[in-house]
Amino acid sequence: MNIHTILVAGNYEKEFQEQLPAKTSQSFRFKHMDEITEEDLAWADAYVGFKPCPGFHFAGIKWVHSFKAGVNNYLEIDGWKERDILLTRTVSTFGQKISEYCLSYVLRDLQFHHYFGIRQREKKWAPKTPQMVKDQTIVIFGTGEIGQEIAKVFSSLGATVFGVSHSGKQKEYFQKVTKTSSSSTLTAQADWIISTLPLTNETSKLFDRTFFSKLNGAAFINVGRGHTVDEQALLEALNSGKVRCAVLDVLETEPLPESSQLWERDDIIITPHISAVTELNEAIVCFLETLKRIENNEVLPNRVDFLKGY
Amino acid sequence: MNIHTILVAGNYEKEFQEQLPAKTSQSFRFKHMDEITEEDLAWADAYVGFKPCPGFHFAGIKWVHSFKAGVNNYLEIDGWKERDILLTRTVSTFGQKISEYCLSYVLRDLQFHHYFGIRQREKKWAPKTPQMVKDQTIVIFGTGEIGQEIAKVFSSLGATVFGVSHSGKQKEYFQKVTKTSSSSTLTAQADWIISTLPLTNETSKLFDRTFFSKLNGAAFINVGRGHTVDEQALLEALNSGKVRCAVLDVLETEPLPESSQLWERDDIIITPHISAVTELNEAIVCFLETLKRIENNEVLPNRVDFLKGY
Repeated sequence: MNIHTILVAGNYEKEFQEQLPAKTSQSFRFKHMDEITEEDLAWADAYVGFKPCPGFHFAGIKWVHSFKAGVNNYLEIDGWKERDILLTRTVSTFGQKISEYCLSYVLRDLQFHHYFGIRQREKKWAPKTPQMVKDQTIVIFGTGEIGQEIAKVFSSLGATVFGVSHSGKQKEYFQKVTKTSSSSTLTAQADWIISTLPLTNETSKLFDRTFFSKLNGAAFINVGRGHTVDEQALLEALNSGKVRCAVLDVLETEPLPESSQLWERDDIIITPHISAVTELNEAIVCFLETLKRIENNEVLPNRVDFLKGY
Repeated sequence: MNIHTILVAGNYEKEFQEQLPAKTSQSFRFKHMDEITEEDLAWADAYVGFKPCPGFHFAGIKWVHSFKAGVNNYLEIDGWKERDILLTRTVSTFGQKISEYCLSYVLRDLQFHHYFGIRQREKKWAPKTPQMVKDQTIVIFGTGEIGQEIAKVFSSLGATVFGVSHSGKQKEYFQKVTKTSSSSTLTAQADWIISTLPLTNETSKLFDRTFFSKLNGAAFINVGRGHTVDEQALLEALNSGKVRCAVLDVLETEPLPESSQLWERDDIIITPHISAVTELNEAIVCFLETLKRIENNEVLPNRVDFLKGY
């Protein structure tokens, strides 16, 4: 299938520019959904968006890509099979991405990567027995889709995984879930604390002096939102040993200013908010991968089967 | 239970000294199994060994720890339940240990730990999207217990996992297993090659110039034996880009001499044969963990249930 012209329903030019390869053989038009005209539809080989625009019809369109995983809005339109239109959808891997991020830093620690890296530079053969995931107690704040996926990965490796949530409702893959208000018994025994919390009135500065004072040397990983942490309190907790080390993918100020003292600490790992790309970015990445596969005539794992409806 | 005196059946004093904490409140006796006397048995609170010594009887022994996972030799002795003797056994985690080692280095690479480490030292906020395990093709040489455990862990994260073995017999967790002689189709598409191979006539220098010439930029992890690799050929393959990087836990000469040029390369990670401790060491580690748990009155996950026999 040859795709030359791509109509994007939404003013996402900036976000696309960040992800687009240097050279693309296609022309793009970015238009707010309500401003798309007949002429735009006639111009386009492909339509990309969260849903069909008002008055959407296929005109010359051969391929439609949904920015969402669900495609029910699109399937209400008639003529897909008759006109042999390709419909693809965004396949989300948010939870798995964040899980692999967390797992990579836990294993980096348990397998002493830093220690062995120094020994290698010294050319010293100095054995030290790695620790195992099965011996770790991990407390995850937030038991939604992402928290659950993290719990699944760590429990499959034998770790003891607890959850903390607003409701305290029990969820699969957690040995136990408690309410935020009664989490200190769990956090006191944690080797690792992982936060996936979004920013709300309730979670703002949840990880404060009082919270950290109840830990016993846990490592702290934040893949939720920066404003849930009082960074000054975290620094004090690192100094006092209440927190053993921290891995921060999100921060109060992003990008983290060059002047921040967080950069310089040996017991803090900073990554630039990469544990999972934001939803629109992930949708764009998925769209571009699909486009590449179409250009190379490859199999499309995210092609919608009109019989199944997904 | 109070344990003061421990009789070890075997001349393992050196190996124990390497693992024992600086302070121990117990006295140890190390004796070759055939040299254990009545007086030794009468002296001991605990007996540790691969099997009961000739003429073994409980005397004052309250706890027996088996260096093996199987305890059938011990269970032939009468009186365990009547005398309320504790029997514990070695729980082996060889496969899982090596899996976590491999996974840690694969994730280190996919999550760009090295890149982000440099950016942190430069205080630069420079996002780069990590890659995912599910997009990796991994070819494992050796499909025994260890190879299978590695395959299980990587396939649970969605990777495409192939196996290579002497027989080419299909095994669970591998999408396909081929014979060593016909493995080049698989290795040509590999992102990662992991060797778990033991040293035999057949595997000696198996990873040679010819082998590496058929790769297309795979990363190479060796957790098997050093002598399966022609290290000179590996260096050439790294130089030519046939191999992208190497993670070596085993080497032709161990400890690796300070003069070796392997230490200095940015595209080689050296670890000092730690991906799994040798069997006796693992047995000793398990024994010491059990001893600690007994001292602290903790639950013993490796306690033998006399009804089940394991």
